[in-house]
Amino acid sequence: MKNEDISIKMNSLKKLLKGDKRIIAQTISAVENDTNTKILETIFPYTGKAYHIGITGPPGAGKSTLVNVIAKKLLEKNNKIGIIAVDPTSPFSGGALLGDRVRMTDLALQKNVFIRSMASRGSLGGLASKTKDAALVLDASGMDYVLIETIGVGQVELDIAQVCDTTVVILVPESGDSIQAMKAGLLEIADIIVVNKGDREGCDRLIMELKFAFELRDKQAGWHFPILKTIATENKGIEELVSAIDSHRAYLHKSGKLEDERKGKLMLRIHELIEEKIRAHLKEKIIKEDELKIMIDKVYKRKLNPYRIASNIAKGIIKSQTRRK
Amino acid sequence: MKNEDISIKMNSLKKLLKGDKRIIAQTISAVENDTNTKILETIFPYTGKAYHIGITGPPGAGKSTLVNVIAKKLLEKNNKIGIIAVDPTSPFSGGALLGDRVRMTDLALQKNVFIRSMASRGSLGGLASKTKDAALVLDASGMDYVLIETIGVGQVELDIAQVCDTTVVILVPESGDSIQAMKAGLLEIADIIVVNKGDREGCDRLIMELKFAFELRDKQAGWHFPILKTIATENKGIEELVSAIDSHRAYLHKSGKLEDERKGKLMLRIHELIEEKIRAHLKEKIIKEDELKIMIDKVYKRKLNPYRIASNIAKGIIKSQTRRK
Repeated sequence: MKNEDISIKMNSLKKLLKGDKRIIAQTISAVENDTNTKILETIFPYTGKAYHIGITGPPGAGKSTLVNVIAKKLLEKNNKIGIIAVDPTSPFSGGALLGDRVRMTDLALQKNVFIRSMASRGSLGGLASKTKDAALVLDASGMDYVLIETIGVGQVELDIAQVCDTTVVILVPESGDSIQAMKAGLLEIADIIVVNKGDREGCDRLIMELKFAFELRDKQAGWHFPILKTIATENKGIEELVSAIDSHRAYLHKSGKLEDERKGKLMLRIHELIEEKIRAHLKEKIIKEDELKIMIDKVYKRKLNPYRIASNIAKGIIKSQTRRK
Repeated sequence: MKNEDISIKMNSLKKLLKGDKRIIAQTISAVENDTNTKILETIFPYTGKAYHIGITGPPGAGKSTLVNVIAKKLLEKNNKIGIIAVDPTSPFSGGALLGDRVRMTDLALQKNVFIRSMASRGSLGGLASKTKDAALVLDASGMDYVLIETIGVGQVELDIAQVCDTTVVILVPESGDSIQAMKAGLLEIADIIVVNKGDREGCDRLIMELKFAFELRDKQAGWHFPILKTIATENKGIEELVSAIDSHRAYLHKSGKLEDERKGKLMLRIHELIEEKIRAHLKEKIIKEDELKIMIDKVYKRKLNPYRIASNIAKGIIKSQTRRK
């Protein structure tokens, strides 16, 4: 009974692999609300085909409008597209003005598009981790592209970018944005840089600054980082952007980097998963111990120190690992 | 020899406890660049006296200007103040315009102020964790207040807020900000809410919205969340803000929540530290294993799945814990 609930039924699996929207939605929900990884283990063999594009940038840069127009361009070429919005301000997540939301619904109704927004709270496990799982479900469901929109400001977002083959960073020509983005490590994860709202003042200056910043990296990376200008609301510059994504994909294939990077990402993912397992174990086994509560009392009174306690507990956990060898 | 390097010398400890700025700086650097916790264990018994105030909010809300004026008010009352800037756009971190930076230097030169900015990269261990360690150093150095400025957008920042006794969330009357802040979970960590740039359009509306949002929480929490208006650049509303911080502190004391919350935070900290230890162990012992590289190859080819591998490795690590009982 329990097994039936948790594991994905054969019939559902077939439907999922064929891209049945209802089953996709159910599967993502199941994955989101369950720490059991049975479903993910079942679908994993069917993944690895979708191309993952990350769209990130500061709030108000016009990320979702860009996701929208990119998706439409890719649809024209008969692709199946999954969209994940992790940005809480995205209209895909219901975070923007009504006008935006209506515009997005239009895309959601298309046959070959599946849109999902990830809640930042209330799901078991971390947001970044759950987003990666959701991307895996979309990958298994036969999507050609998975677009992931994140608000480019925090660690969670940098983590999610890790799962993407091509990461597009969107900036707008507003004072301080470029500096901020650089400091936030955003540009370090960029494969393609887009200056959106390209009709605004300061756009050309920002592009020049960015070109200057990327000149050195171009030489080191073997990839010429495109710095593009778009006006997403007027559909301007989108053709160039989509073709830059294609070029980056071709570059990754030709250089063998696609395989290397994906392997590196799988390695990181395994480490994350191990950490999650251990964290869950710690929460279960240790946080409820009365023993620790007495210790905390002593720590509060400065008779014990948290570093020593942590070190001792960690040693206890790690011991068998060493022994196992 | 090794022991001498890592542990804090008796002479230095005395100077640190007396608030010697040079020693504070050195100690924070040592803590930042070393995974060894010897220093922190040594100073821990001398901590627990400083009151921690978190100042957070979206980019451009004027957080550092507010930190600046709050610090000046507290200085007038003969307090010793430590400031930590985690916000990469903060002038304290060298991230803003020259004018700002000059204004801040003025504060840094004062005898009873110590300012430190935390780098988001290049330090061993997580940013949030290192910030907590730095706050501990400032606490030990005899600071009456530790002010921590963070850019309120990501998980790291929410983690840091955890260490603060009073968290002040700064908003500005600009469209969407309040909604965004709510979605980002910012308001959930707020004890005091400030609408800065209070001379701008939309300020009163934002305050009304916030009052509405907090009405219910007031009743539940037993604390009346103040929603204040400031114009930090003109020093307006600062007296009220500082007195609201005092009131919150008094409330925490009187209700016994200060002790409860600090204990809860120490508990969380111990868990974080355990996780860090285990993570460091995993990086050392597992990431370099050739065995795992062969596995990754199989995972890439979808012959193995990462969830199963992670689960097996985690089980191996956790085993002794269960045995130990």
